[in-house]
Amino acid sequence: MPFVYNAWYVIALPDEVIDRPLARTVLGMPLVSFRQTDGAAAVLLDLCPHRFAALSDGSVAGGRLQCPYHGLQFDGGGRCVHNPHGNGARPSTLDVRSFPVVERDDLIWIWAGDAGDADPADIPDFRCRVDPDLGHVGGYFHLGCNDRLLLDNLMDLGHVQYVHSSKMQSDGFARHRRDVVRERRDIHAFITYPSAAPNALTRRMLPDAPELVDGWSDVRWFPVSATLNYVAYAPAGSAKESSRGASGTHILTPESEGATHYFFGSSRNFAIDDPAIDQVLREWQIQALTREDKRVVEQVEARSAYARAHEFTPAMLSCDEAAVRVSREIDRLERVERERASTSHVAPISTTADRSTGLRG
Amino acid sequence: MPFVYNAWYVIALPDEVIDRPLARTVLGMPLVSFRQTDGAAAVLLDLCPHRFAALSDGSVAGGRLQCPYHGLQFDGGGRCVHNPHGNGARPSTLDVRSFPVVERDDLIWIWAGDAGDADPADIPDFRCRVDPDLGHVGGYFHLGCNDRLLLDNLMDLGHVQYVHSSKMQSDGFARHRRDVVRERRDIHAFITYPSAAPNALTRRMLPDAPELVDGWSDVRWFPVSATLNYVAYAPAGSAKESSRGASGTHILTPESEGATHYFFGSSRNFAIDDPAIDQVLREWQIQALTREDKRVVEQVEARSAYARAHEFTPAMLSCDEAAVRVSREIDRLERVERERASTSHVAPISTTADRSTGLRG
Amino acid sequence: MPFVYNAWYVIALPDEVIDRPLARTVLGMPLVSFRQTDGAAAVLLDLCPHRFAALSDGSVAGGRLQCPYHGLQFDGGGRCVHNPHGNGARPSTLDVRSFPVVERDDLIWIWAGDAGDADPADIPDFRCRVDPDLGHVGGYFHLGCNDRLLLDNLMDLGHVQYVHSSKMQSDGFARHRRDVVRERRDIHAFITYPSAAPNALTRRMLPDAPELVDGWSDVRWFPVSATLNYVAYAPAGSAKESSRGASGTHILTPESEGATHYFFGSSRNFAIDDPAIDQVLREWQIQALTREDKRVVEQVEARSAYARAHEFTPAMLSCDEAAVRVSREIDRLERVERERASTSHVAPISTTADRSTGLRG
Repeated sequence: MPFVYNAWYVIALPDEVIDRPLARTVLGMPLVSFRQTDGAAAVLLDLCPHRFAALSDGSVAGGRLQCPYHGLQFDGGGRCVHNPHGNGARPSTLDVRSFPVVERDDLIWIWAGDAGDADPADIPDFRCRVDPDLGHVGGYFHLGCNDRLLLDNLMDLGHVQYVHSSKMQSDGFARHRRDVVRERRDIHAFITYPSAAPNALTRRMLPDAPELVDGWSDVRWFPVSATLNYVAYAPAGSAKESSRGASGTHILTPESEGATHYFFGSSRNFAIDDPAIDQVLREWQIQALTREDKRVVEQVEARSAYARAHEFTPAMLSCDEAAVRVSREIDRLERVERERASTSHVAPISTTADRSTGLRG
Repeated sequence: MPFVYNAWYVIALPDEVIDRPLARTVLGMPLVSFRQTDGAAAVLLDLCPHRFAALSDGSVAGGRLQCPYHGLQFDGGGRCVHNPHGNGARPSTLDVRSFPVVERDDLIWIWAGDAGDADPADIPDFRCRVDPDLGHVGGYFHLGCNDRLLLDNLMDLGHVQYVHSSKMQSDGFARHRRDVVRERRDIHAFITYPSAAPNALTRRMLPDAPELVDGWSDVRWFPVSATLNYVAYAPAGSAKESSRGASGTHILTPESEGATHYFFGSSRNFAIDDPAIDQVLREWQIQALTREDKRVVEQVEARSAYARAHEFTPAMLSCDEAAVRVSREIDRLERVERERASTSHVAPISTTADRSTGLRG
Repeated sequence: MPFVYNAWYVIALPDEVIDRPLARTVLGMPLVSFRQTDGAAAVLLDLCPHRFAALSDGSVAGGRLQCPYHGLQFDGGGRCVHNPHGNGARPSTLDVRSFPVVERDDLIWIWAGDAGDADPADIPDFRCRVDPDLGHVGGYFHLGCNDRLLLDNLMDLGHVQYVHSSKMQSDGFARHRRDVVRERRDIHAFITYPSAAPNALTRRMLPDAPELVDGWSDVRWFPVSATLNYVAYAPAGSAKESSRGASGTHILTPESEGATHYFFGSSRNFAIDDPAIDQVLREWQIQALTREDKRVVEQVEARSAYARAHEFTPAMLSCDEAAVRVSREIDRLERVERERASTSHVAPISTTADRSTGLRG
């Protein structure tokens, strides 16, 4: 499957990984997460080396994961530590692949590629999610859409005026300015809406907003599947420092080519303890992501087989610049990885068990 | 997909195409229908050239269809007439394919092939559907069956005695006479049932029917997917001119190889204003088409993979003559189209936008 | 499909084959079963040679099966005995393949391969199912699992301690002894649990069981898809002859590679007329087969595509010996059959009608 494996991906929110195993498929790999006795999360291939049973249907006791089929037990590093059959032998063929894990910024990240290449310094910075001076809401959705089509959507703010018209339509849309820049490995799309009436969502959250505001939006893509979307408003003509805004977490982890794990959140610098605003944002996240974006992307996906069969190429608009640059960069990373795999004569996904213990950020 | 594209197909009934776009897939092509300001129907590929969004999820205003994703607007000929992004440029790559359209006989026909070959004179004659001296009932069903298997069923009146036994079984079946003739491009199957008791459906609609009637049936196939089935009865031995009967519309438009749009109707020359007879016929259409024929054809389809894998060939009976001749003719038309495409080195479905405006019958 | 065709398979329980046709797919072949006038079961390919309609949607009268589409009638040997169309000709191309049938031991067996090779002496011995000195409960389930994965499960008693822990966990598990032997064409796995507390199911059925019992289990595999699992208990140290136990029918007939017909039963030598024990066993069969085994096997199946793509080989444990020997034997039988078919230049499934009449055991 056409994925970049050598990258950090979010597999779960910390409170999803508890005293029971959690099954989740990532990049086509069935994985199981559980907590060890020291509280560290562990992630293994969810496939017992014996008969390929689902370890996630088993149980966790004493930080060990027990297979539901024949009772083999595994530690967080994937090593088989108990075999109740025959003489109890535990050859290395009974070990299961484990993945490097880092829990940071209220997210559990795994390195999906060769464990030797995992560097926690490459994990995108989402510290806004745990900033005590901000107000947070967020969660997890499973969407039946391709992650690349969702990423096109996230990097392209031109769709907001139409897909999210009920809450986000702005009379400043025709006058907005856009700039796309690359910063080290990241790609940003900056948009400014000068001196426009606040949109419906802003009016809902900031009833005291003035008649005219300046708006900013900064969508930052971190390779390969995470974006942070900072949106802010200030009275028209005032300093950007006086703005009220929120950093939006939008992290897409491919389950398969046709389904995506979506980790989302909003971290705002206003009304941070106001549960009514929490509720407004929660409803908006459900509406925007699971109804509006989902619908349009699913329909694009439904037409992609026809478009491919007829060799259609999308006719790009000016609003697509950031999405196109991100897409080309991911294509490049995939190509690099494929070529590396073919020259090294090593499959990108090792079938032997990986001994590295989980990392912790 | 093995379809004849260079042909007229019914895409919708006129009252299905209103002020909102209608999505319908025809021959594997996702299409969208809408009304222009002059009331003329337009049919476009339901796939925005920008990001392949579903135009049918958008809106119609002022006879223009607006894409739900980024607000591009298209006229009935598929030309992009508004781009709200950047400098508003509208290169021809933003145009979408349109299809020749004719609205006639209470049906909306499209030409699914090369627009230059479309000739409204080739549209089958269904004027009976709008004859004010007849009584009409009809509608539209979506069936999860292959259209060719349904067409076999329509051309073969030998199945009526068995599949529709509750209403159509006749004691004249064993004495019926059959004749199959070709008339220009059409193929007819004539059947006569001399001097038999009226079947249950006839007795229901014509309570005053005599004890013995002569029956006629004339199933006419028009290339490639429409049939008109005239069924009539007269007192045994009387002139055919005194018959009471109905012309049955049975038009099959393939959605895909496994699903068919079925446009059906009945236009009768008796009790034309009697709503009780309308109701009898409506119930009969539902029973015969969506229960009895659907069930038998779905089961044939379920077995076709097994039959193909074992290279079974159907063992034809005498009642299959018309169906076999129609089937061979469609195979020939497909072959001609395939060969023409391969010699011209032009794909049968053009990916460039088609500028022709809709025709109107 | 990778099946052994030259073998006897159970297609139905006798009381499933009544005066209406029964449709059931076996080894990928759509089949129809019905009763002839002498009460003998007949099994035909469920596919009319005319248009491939489902004969199972037709009716049975006078021991003949009538096609629902055009009224052709077939006898139990597959011969077309009535054609109501045209001159009524019945060439041999209108005959349908029939299968050798034996009704024995409250099971209906068919020979799925070349009729000439069918020998009723090869049918596995399940006479325990009709022994008047035993108490019987049993039935039929359809499971969406591969039959080979279910057979691995049946031949491997190491899983019982874990998958069926609520009722079958034994403190004698760690001390059990196992022996696997081949006896003519059959393979047995013997297990003895010396001097252990009765498990929960035993305590439920035998409230007067002593504190310590010796347990036996003898799982016998008959090629290719039937197993008989005898389980018994006696007071610890007493003679095996004094045991109370049950012979378990576990017969798997592949429907396709991903679904299996499961015929099961229990024939016990205690409390044979006690409906309360019948009920305990019925509930246990539902729990063990349709919940516990089904769940674990479905999850193995869900992972098999991943395991195959990465060329994983299962890491066998000592408890797998019987399952591995059975699996190798089935692989060998499949290979023999494939090679025979390729050297004889005859397809393993004949497409011509088979004239042999049903056998009766």
